[in-house]
Amino acid sequence: MSKISNKINFGNYFEDFSIGQKIVHPLPRTISEGDVSLYIAFTGSRFSLHSSDVVAKEFGYEKRPIDDILMFHLTFGKSVQDISLNAIANLGYAEISFPNPVFTGDTVSMTSKVIGLKENSNGKSGVVYVHSIGVNQNGNEVLNFKRWVMVHKKDHENLSGINEVPTFQKATPILDTINIPTIKCVDVSASGGVYFFEDYEVGERLNHPEGITIDNSDHTLATKLYQNNAKVHFNDHMMKSTPMGQRLMYGGIIISMARAISFNGLQNAQWVYAINSGNHCNPTYAGDTIYAYSEILEKIEHKREDIGLLRVRTIALKNQNPKEIENAKGEDGKYLPNVVLDLDYTVVIPKKSTKK
Amino acid sequence: MSKISNKINFGNYFEDFSIGQKIVHPLPRTISEGDVSLYIAFTGSRFSLHSSDVVAKEFGYEKRPIDDILMFHLTFGKSVQDISLNAIANLGYAEISFPNPVFTGDTVSMTSKVIGLKENSNGKSGVVYVHSIGVNQNGNEVLNFKRWVMVHKKDHENLSGINEVPTFQKATPILDTINIPTIKCVDVSASGGVYFFEDYEVGERLNHPEGITIDNSDHTLATKLYQNNAKVHFNDHMMKSTPMGQRLMYGGIIISMARAISFNGLQNAQWVYAINSGNHCNPTYAGDTIYAYSEILEKIEHKREDIGLLRVRTIALKNQNPKEIENAKGEDGKYLPNVVLDLDYTVVIPKKSTKK
Amino acid sequence: MSKISNKINFGNYFEDFSIGQKIVHPLPRTISEGDVSLYIAFTGSRFSLHSSDVVAKEFGYEKRPIDDILMFHLTFGKSVQDISLNAIANLGYAEISFPNPVFTGDTVSMTSKVIGLKENSNGKSGVVYVHSIGVNQNGNEVLNFKRWVMVHKKDHENLSGINEVPTFQKATPILDTINIPTIKCVDVSASGGVYFFEDYEVGERLNHPEGITIDNSDHTLATKLYQNNAKVHFNDHMMKSTPMGQRLMYGGIIISMARAISFNGLQNAQWVYAINSGNHCNPTYAGDTIYAYSEILEKIEHKREDIGLLRVRTIALKNQNPKEIENAKGEDGKYLPNVVLDLDYTVVIPKKSTKK
Repeated sequence: MSKISNKINFGNYFEDFSIGQKIVHPLPRTISEGDVSLYIAFTGSRFSLHSSDVVAKEFGYEKRPIDDILMFHLTFGKSVQDISLNAIANLGYAEISFPNPVFTGDTVSMTSKVIGLKENSNGKSGVVYVHSIGVNQNGNEVLNFKRWVMVHKKDHENLSGINEVPTFQKATPILDTINIPTIKCVDVSASGGVYFFEDYEVGERLNHPEGITIDNSDHTLATKLYQNNAKVHFNDHMMKSTPMGQRLMYGGIIISMARAISFNGLQNAQWVYAINSGNHCNPTYAGDTIYAYSEILEKIEHKREDIGLLRVRTIALKNQNPKEIENAKGEDGKYLPNVVLDLDYTVVIPKKSTKK
Repeated sequence: MSKISNKINFGNYFEDFSIGQKIVHPLPRTISEGDVSLYIAFTGSRFSLHSSDVVAKEFGYEKRPIDDILMFHLTFGKSVQDISLNAIANLGYAEISFPNPVFTGDTVSMTSKVIGLKENSNGKSGVVYVHSIGVNQNGNEVLNFKRWVMVHKKDHENLSGINEVPTFQKATPILDTINIPTIKCVDVSASGGVYFFEDYEVGERLNHPEGITIDNSDHTLATKLYQNNAKVHFNDHMMKSTPMGQRLMYGGIIISMARAISFNGLQNAQWVYAINSGNHCNPTYAGDTIYAYSEILEKIEHKREDIGLLRVRTIALKNQNPKEIENAKGEDGKYLPNVVLDLDYTVVIPKKSTKK
Repeated sequence: MSKISNKINFGNYFEDFSIGQKIVHPLPRTISEGDVSLYIAFTGSRFSLHSSDVVAKEFGYEKRPIDDILMFHLTFGKSVQDISLNAIANLGYAEISFPNPVFTGDTVSMTSKVIGLKENSNGKSGVVYVHSIGVNQNGNEVLNFKRWVMVHKKDHENLSGINEVPTFQKATPILDTINIPTIKCVDVSASGGVYFFEDYEVGERLNHPEGITIDNSDHTLATKLYQNNAKVHFNDHMMKSTPMGQRLMYGGIIISMARAISFNGLQNAQWVYAINSGNHCNPTYAGDTIYAYSEILEKIEHKREDIGLLRVRTIALKNQNPKEIENAKGEDGKYLPNVVLDLDYTVVIPKKSTKK
């Protein structure tokens, strides 16, 4: 006669969180060349800084730094079991920044602090706001962001009425010091792009021509690599009995695809400085083909003379060429059904003076 | 006019084996960071010892050792072309042990000795028993096991009547010396688990909540990575004309999934000391969702003070949540149709005194 | 009101090429252990030289060199965006050679020179002939080949009448110096093959028994890893409205599978010296099972005493066992519908005197 164990971790519910609570996420992760190759295989990403040690050295790095979005996934994945295992929805991100580069051999880990809690009036769920910080093995910050998720309550009867909602900046602040080596020259025959900071203008729209279809093995291999264990992405047997009827793709997959697809037109924007906000507007499933277009929202001068920043909005679409739509939202202010990501982020791009 | 070559290796038949015969399996394999990342992508495994160099160093290793089950697959795969290319069925394993850790950069190879032969009375097939030993580039043993497979005979007419069946121990013996560094402290905020040797009790059952669906690309990529060339796993064209009607998943895939899924509840049981026996009770195919539950069979004290051993039975199920079944076998003593693996193995887990 | 950007690279059209034009392909690529492991996962390749550092050192290398065909894909992929993004068809290859080995950590890049242009009489397209050279980070040649592709014209009205067609050698010339270490011994218990140069004869045909099914995730992961961005391989949404109705597999996938499958019978032919010509006779799609057979076309003695060369023709088939067909072409001189690759290449294989 077996005894059912109480050692299973079923994740946290709304009542398990308290303002100011600090959570050390388990599973520090050493990032390797295997992760880097898999990321290229998943996305087809072609940014030369992350493909070539020779290019990275010309920029002043010792070797290729890890793609910012890959590092995000590998670090972020750790927080799922503590924060969002019982999530009903990932509601938003804000103020994401990438303060320091990460290299193969580095080990990243993450801690989160609860900065807000808002119980829903139906008593069944609530929104948890966390501030998460990822560090490398030396304790240097490599990722810093805020996110909020709606999670189930255990007890639907009793209401606490808690309603502490933090405020977020509309965009991640730009610091005076950016931890990117001084760019002396950009070899355009290596990067594949001839355009620099000065060449872009606010309001310019880039219809990226590539469309990439994602299959079940692609997205589940990626999400497992990130050790993100949210069940909706993996368990087809369970999902068949939900309205979705199948495995839901991890939203981070779409961020990665959108970034990789944006290469064509933004080849020299090799550094993601910040993600200001992100919205997974509609779900994506295996078999969907991802397209993207980008709009230049803002041109930001920096005190450094070698680089500038572009604030970019990249819209990812499923099964629709970006040429076919003008706006991500319809006249009713709602996202069109084929819009799957609305990403507002800031990239660093060298100035013309660096062109070789 | 071409001449058909006789240089093709069609594998060994029952008559090709003799008692005492020694087979050096070709294809020594260097294990790399690429293999490690792929294994995480295949399984979603989250044991911190294999994810983080920082954790491994705290345990006294120079860097992350290779996951025991990955090492098993990479070494075992070499023996397929000699032992089981013409197998009708992989009947069983016994006394599997992992005497020494393996690291990236190590090269593993394997030899087998035939220790038993039993001709089937129908004259069409027989069972071959082998003792296989895997070593690293320095000749240190890293894998030691016995297995038996049923293989075809070439000649169905003549019977040799051979019937030499070895006996196996019910469990791999526990040695006085275990090649694991003395564990000084376990950082539970890294491992993700707060339970140690003393916390488990015999008869305790852990219903692991994760279910993971496996697709054709997942399992064929893994099995090709292991250079296991058994045709049933890869050749859909051939399998379509068999009763299975499709590619059969390599049983090792299920061992890996079961072990990865068992993380939730056994987070600190990071070392597989031995596999006592394994039974692939029913076949698995692409699209199946794998679940698992574990029972603590035995608690084994060791002369070392820092660690103990748990003998665990993990049952893997397809398309059924472990909460729904009590026993792996029905009243008739046969495995239920959704039970796909019955694995009896022994793990090393630190004692409470190491908790940090 | 957004302004459509002109910064998108839509690839070159026939009019964009001129005789003598030199193109430096962007995206130098550092090759890593991740790429090596993924290649084994894609192909199941078992050549011991590329699997084991121990074997590679016995041959006189510092470590495993990169599989020649993997290196080809990683280097070749770079040229797609400049040469064949608007290709109607990849018509052929010639004089492919692999002058120097490549190792993990090396960074490969490529330049091409236009050596021929032939406008089609319908005015809608033309054939571009290029000579491409890949080098490592030290400028040493690692790949040298010629290829020709049919690409669209922008202007269908005006004809230039250009018709400059280069001539190609029927086989890549064999040089006096081959950059392979002097082979002192071949350990047949490591390579898995007991046959050497002297054992093969012209006209001998090897029916390789393995068949391997390829799925969508397999081939798209591989082609993305190679950073080959030809749309036909990735965009199912776009391909659904073409006569193909689905994603077309990159022809290089079939070259890799054919080479990996040829292992059984050619285990000691571990070096591809040259590809003399290649023809993708019919398309392949997800779900197809690839088989292959090889014919020994020529035995080539070299002034070196340790090695010889075999000129081999490997025919890859889809969904048909090679035992079932005698010739790749029918009586009408056309390839049979299941023939998907006709590859004429030259391998280096040690002589019997090296056998250990």
